[in-house]
Amino acid sequence: MFLEAIFHQPRDQYAYACTETDLHIRIRTKRGDIHTIRLLHGDPYDWSDGEWQYADLEMTLTGSDQFFDYWQATVTPSFKRLRYGFLLSDGEEDIFYGEKGFSGEPSFEIGDYFCFPFLNAIDVFGAPEWVKDTVWYQIFPERFANGDPSNDPDGTLEWNAEEPAPDHFFGGDLQGVIDHIDYLKELGINGIYFTPIFKAPSNHKYDTTDYMEIDPHFGSEETLKELIHACHDRGIKVMLDAVFNHSGYHFSPFQDVLEKGEESPYKDWFHLHDFPVDPESNPPNYDTFAFEASMPKLNTEHPEVKEYLLNVGRHWVEEFDIDGWRLDVANEVDHQFWRDFRHAVKSIKPDLYILGEIWHDSMAWLRGDQFDAVMNYPFTTNILKLFAHEAISPETFVENMTTVMHMYPQTVTDVNFNLVGSHDTPRILTECGEDVRKLKLLYTFMLTSPGTPCIYYGDEVGLTGGQDPGCRKCFPWDEEQQDLDLHGHVQKLTYLRQEYDLLRNEGVFSFLPSAGEDRHVAFTKSDGDRTILVVLNCSDTDLEYTIPFELKGVPLLNILTGEEFTAEAESIELTLEAYGFAIIKF
Amino acid sequence: MFLEAIFHQPRDQYAYACTETDLHIRIRTKRGDIHTIRLLHGDPYDWSDGEWQYADLEMTLTGSDQFFDYWQATVTPSFKRLRYGFLLSDGEEDIFYGEKGFSGEPSFEIGDYFCFPFLNAIDVFGAPEWVKDTVWYQIFPERFANGDPSNDPDGTLEWNAEEPAPDHFFGGDLQGVIDHIDYLKELGINGIYFTPIFKAPSNHKYDTTDYMEIDPHFGSEETLKELIHACHDRGIKVMLDAVFNHSGYHFSPFQDVLEKGEESPYKDWFHLHDFPVDPESNPPNYDTFAFEASMPKLNTEHPEVKEYLLNVGRHWVEEFDIDGWRLDVANEVDHQFWRDFRHAVKSIKPDLYILGEIWHDSMAWLRGDQFDAVMNYPFTTNILKLFAHEAISPETFVENMTTVMHMYPQTVTDVNFNLVGSHDTPRILTECGEDVRKLKLLYTFMLTSPGTPCIYYGDEVGLTGGQDPGCRKCFPWDEEQQDLDLHGHVQKLTYLRQEYDLLRNEGVFSFLPSAGEDRHVAFTKSDGDRTILVVLNCSDTDLEYTIPFELKGVPLLNILTGEEFTAEAESIELTLEAYGFAIIKF
Repeated sequence: MFLEAIFHQPRDQYAYACTETDLHIRIRTKRGDIHTIRLLHGDPYDWSDGEWQYADLEMTLTGSDQFFDYWQATVTPSFKRLRYGFLLSDGEEDIFYGEKGFSGEPSFEIGDYFCFPFLNAIDVFGAPEWVKDTVWYQIFPERFANGDPSNDPDGTLEWNAEEPAPDHFFGGDLQGVIDHIDYLKELGINGIYFTPIFKAPSNHKYDTTDYMEIDPHFGSEETLKELIHACHDRGIKVMLDAVFNHSGYHFSPFQDVLEKGEESPYKDWFHLHDFPVDPESNPPNYDTFAFEASMPKLNTEHPEVKEYLLNVGRHWVEEFDIDGWRLDVANEVDHQFWRDFRHAVKSIKPDLYILGEIWHDSMAWLRGDQFDAVMNYPFTTNILKLFAHEAISPETFVENMTTVMHMYPQTVTDVNFNLVGSHDTPRILTECGEDVRKLKLLYTFMLTSPGTPCIYYGDEVGLTGGQDPGCRKCFPWDEEQQDLDLHGHVQKLTYLRQEYDLLRNEGVFSFLPSAGEDRHVAFTKSDGDRTILVVLNCSDTDLEYTIPFELKGVPLLNILTGEEFTAEAESIELTLEAYGFAIIKF
Repeated sequence: MFLEAIFHQPRDQYAYACTETDLHIRIRTKRGDIHTIRLLHGDPYDWSDGEWQYADLEMTLTGSDQFFDYWQATVTPSFKRLRYGFLLSDGEEDIFYGEKGFSGEPSFEIGDYFCFPFLNAIDVFGAPEWVKDTVWYQIFPERFANGDPSNDPDGTLEWNAEEPAPDHFFGGDLQGVIDHIDYLKELGINGIYFTPIFKAPSNHKYDTTDYMEIDPHFGSEETLKELIHACHDRGIKVMLDAVFNHSGYHFSPFQDVLEKGEESPYKDWFHLHDFPVDPESNPPNYDTFAFEASMPKLNTEHPEVKEYLLNVGRHWVEEFDIDGWRLDVANEVDHQFWRDFRHAVKSIKPDLYILGEIWHDSMAWLRGDQFDAVMNYPFTTNILKLFAHEAISPETFVENMTTVMHMYPQTVTDVNFNLVGSHDTPRILTECGEDVRKLKLLYTFMLTSPGTPCIYYGDEVGLTGGQDPGCRKCFPWDEEQQDLDLHGHVQKLTYLRQEYDLLRNEGVFSFLPSAGEDRHVAFTKSDGDRTILVVLNCSDTDLEYTIPFELKGVPLLNILTGEEFTAEAESIELTLEAYGFAIIKF
């Protein structure tokens, strides 16, 4: 056995409460090295005749990546406390692994076992229940629809008449979203994530001038209320974007600092290095987002700043009943701030969703005290590499995705925010080399796999474009300019996801072996009684796929086509055309 | 290279701010597998000609345990942000390791690097500065000294006249501590940790009746104030014991619940399973500490309970100016409670020390938001195995202690609470088979190594005793009954620790190789200019030890004996008698 490869820690994604009564315990071993693992576990105070009373449970292999096998067990501690150790077998030899290391036999010393001291309900990671059932739609308001030309900024260009440039305005606004709310409802989405809508000079509005005011080019407080009502009436949740890492240049406290320097009562609201504050200095003589002089970093440790921003957080929940906050540049703001933020907003609306923008490993924010989810860019990366760029093999995809699915507790993975593009990346169809077949395949994966998926506005009708500003084109409302076939596919998938709880976040996700010469990915979601099988042909040639289950006499349903059939033969073959896919229920 | 053995995570003990400007980055590799590691690091936004600008720093091997080598680098990010990756070499091959895995060459994609997003000062782990300079003394008040016979409980036994039993009272009290404060000052300790002093029926007082009242058999509020003043006058800090996991049976809210059942306004103060609440049920029909019916677990999630206990926490700091809280059964209380507790007490006294009683891996409480330290029982375990029980080799001791010293950030290890015995374990001299030579050796290690050491009352004069109640004997104030030689040794060590900052927590700790036939441990503390070498002979025969440094012509000082000498020869040999030791400065 490769003992150096064995990894467990009694916290984070390796030991956590998955409900108020159950724990998940996980361990990682060198790939292919270990045959079985038994989890020895018990209450630390449960002794009889001088012997500790422990039970014994076989762990499940939940996936394998390039280097490791991942194992998991679910335990319900009788008295909320748990001590546990692992008995690993490679078929020849047994090794015990506990907090103090390895031994040939299970230890008799309870101090040698790992400890999950007590399952306190308040510490359980708990994202809102509704998130599991949500398909998000991201709207960049300046480009979705212009519903009220009267609030257009000076110099607004004709809708969709030209390629966007960084300083363009096309007049999109909140009324535009209200006008098209039924389009969204019919698309089958049930959550909207809006990039910032507060007063700011740019078209993207990440440079906030006033956190307490809707940008007048987007509408008024009344428009927002009307929009949120319209959404809620249709079962659609609304998430706004909070840019708390930095303000915009025109934010009045920053203007005050520019004007009054050391005399400004706001001088501690920022991280100023010296005076006078000089936006022309290079780098700026104050902390900024990146080196953007126009985006001064806010001092979120300062009590006044904190109170101001927490008030912002509370205000839009309390007065406008929003359902989520997406937090921009979330990992550069201090943890203490986010803990207080969570407390502040969840006190008002306990089932508010808190989503952090973090591109990297985010475990430190996902322990239950800060965020409910992060933007799952590691998911994005692998999706692009396989489906869009064909840069990796399906086997590598499965390995990488297994890594991603074991980065966090399963409770996080189930509600993590899966995206394949945003206002910060090239359009997904462009990433796919404008091959719609690839995009349909990719969406089939995203909308059937764990997590809460998000569609970037217009992607569903075939919008293209490169990196910002290319990815911020106007939504083409003229159906002539829409790919209706693609739209129909996305709609089909969102409807199927609504119809089948196994396609939302019920059941256990498992990749099926995909090694071999065919480029394909197959997986199941299953609750033991019911199984949905998804097969994806990632190649430009036909795929003959043999379903690797004994299904003779079992009724099957192709849920994409509605076709029902019962297998007569021992094995069932599916024929998938180039970039084709099938979703079979049995 | 054994890639499966390489471990890093961008958080906890592997990536942390060690000051408000510096980060420690650590990585673990298979022992002996890697020759050098270079840390590639830079600011994520520092680009020039389309290329990311990174610097390159050689990492230091900080120790090796049974399986792994540990490496560390200190980095000062120019703009508080850091991306980093590792370039590992085994002498033949170079491998790059970043957040997305391994590659043959350093990645050009900044997204492939690990991310420490921003060094926010408020998130930096910061224990009080004074703790590094503290030698603690643990007092079990009922057994230290009886200064006021007028407050003795009925049935108090004659001091030290018999072996303690679980229900004995000997009349020890706070006045007794006041009376002997100069004894403690002269011993050289500068912090006292008191086990509980609040009103409770038992002699140990872990079954609190009233958190707001000093136990009348221990004294009054006036006595405590006088005691704390007497301590502070002598530069001695005072830490009290907070038993917040559970109350005692006679705690009035629990009595109310017993009496009124479901009608009690306190029914949510506990975790009651059903009514009537029945302390005779087996197991009790409410959550308890272990299965102790007389120690009902407090519902620390309940706002009233929380507010009550936080008030307790504040009260004794605000009104009595205590310097630390030791938290009993700390890991069974919820994390949210401890975060709020930290905020509550540190708001009053920012340099208060918060010490959790946790016997297991405690990383989850030591991230800067909860505790400053834990009772370092993994340290205890290894100390006992080597010095007391001679159950492991010095090599194994060094390996295990290296594991312990890399369990947490170095900032934690420097202030962690090192103990070799307490009211919950057999006396250390008893563990040493009553061989005082072994105990002197053990203390020499404890009082010269990193962490903040604690002496359990009476251990310094040779008290013996087995597991509770044996370890709770009365302090033998009659000098005839004291081992004055042992006392002198402990005093010598505390004075040396006061005199030499290198023996407190300055400088870098390094074990020297101790493989071979001799049973010895040697280590240095060094700040580059000055070095202190400690050599410990763990065997019952003489040791000839050759100092493994070139010191010809260098003045040396034996700081235990005061002897100064200058090496004339190429190598210096020390002769240590059985269980002997030397502390040499150069």
